[in-house]
Amino acid sequence: MSRKISDSTIRRLSVYLRILEEAEDSRETASSEDLAERAGTTAAQVRKDLSLFGSFGKRGLGYSIPELSGRLREILGLDREWRVALVGAGRVGAALFEYPGFRNRGFRIVRVFDHDPDKVGRTWGEVVIQDVEGLETAIREEGIEILILAVPARAVQEVVDRAVSAGVRAILNFAPARLRVPDDVALKDVNMVMELEALSFTMSQGTGGR
Amino acid sequence: MSRKISDSTIRRLSVYLRILEEAEDSRETASSEDLAERAGTTAAQVRKDLSLFGSFGKRGLGYSIPELSGRLREILGLDREWRVALVGAGRVGAALFEYPGFRNRGFRIVRVFDHDPDKVGRTWGEVVIQDVEGLETAIREEGIEILILAVPARAVQEVVDRAVSAGVRAILNFAPARLRVPDDVALKDVNMVMELEALSFTMSQGTGGR
Repeated sequence: MSRKISDSTIRRLSVYLRILEEAEDSRETASSEDLAERAGTTAAQVRKDLSLFGSFGKRGLGYSIPELSGRLREILGLDREWRVALVGAGRVGAALFEYPGFRNRGFRIVRVFDHDPDKVGRTWGEVVIQDVEGLETAIREEGIEILILAVPARAVQEVVDRAVSAGVRAILNFAPARLRVPDDVALKDVNMVMELEALSFTMSQGTGGR
Repeated sequence: MSRKISDSTIRRLSVYLRILEEAEDSRETASSEDLAERAGTTAAQVRKDLSLFGSFGKRGLGYSIPELSGRLREILGLDREWRVALVGAGRVGAALFEYPGFRNRGFRIVRVFDHDPDKVGRTWGEVVIQDVEGLETAIREEGIEILILAVPARAVQEVVDRAVSAGVRAILNFAPARLRVPDDVALKDVNMVMELEALSFTMSQGTGGR
């Protein structure tokens, strides 16, 4: 597939899915206007976003909630299980491991790795923390496609290179490092400081400081 | 100020600042091309982004690194200290509290709140975890302008309403809830599941699934 879907479109699809799931116990259909209002966008934007993926809804009747939410799950790749490895068993790693939202969406953390000998061998739920040395073998054996990096910046690139060579196709990166990955590997950086910087920018510009 | 600067522009400014800071020990100047290459964008984009905030650099000489990084810190509101309250002393809260990057950028978590009586009274560094009941008083007394929410979705809106009424101007939200805030309050949602969904979208579209 060659067309490029923007990050903001993908994010809105995730939001639409959440809205539909919240509504599905109480209603059968939703209009573009309903979705737009709850997602904080316009009905035209909703129709444009969905039209990228085919034809949905009937004029005057709106979208069938079960049909559209099923289709959005397919589009977002949520109609299957993704096997995930977590590298970094510190506080951020522990918070992510226990986050119920991942498993609910089919993201299953099947292996956890760390460098620290004090952490290796400990058990989190049903997962035993392993030395990061075993990363490639585990990726191959477990069919792991997603890597979550929750480690300090040091030596992250090496871990990434090894994971990619073993078959990982997507990386969610919490390390404060700019990673290099091949074009066919998807990468998302989550940088908490940059999120706060965007807020301080807005506050500084909004009032000229006070 | 009425012009609207896009989120992606603000994010690039943060990236430029990081690049300049990494370079400043070894060099005095940087060109748009240098910045563009390291930021993964084009020189024209760099010039366009910076031109929104005035005139920088000299033709043929590039930007002075100390001057431009100082100006970017001003633009991003990083030339001062921001006082921050953290609500939620669970794992996510603990990970955020210990994150060194916040303090390095002037974001200082001066108070921590939780509902849980088992957590209230414990000490994190120099901060004693308080009952969330004291939130408004603390915001007023401490001049807190930024709230970080690291709590489950339940009852978050009420906390937000109280914090806003007490003077908070920006919220970094890790709770899986869509919050309502007045127009003059800045809000950033960090949703880990949506980050993973964007990755699974890319993987699903890229190969049609395998």
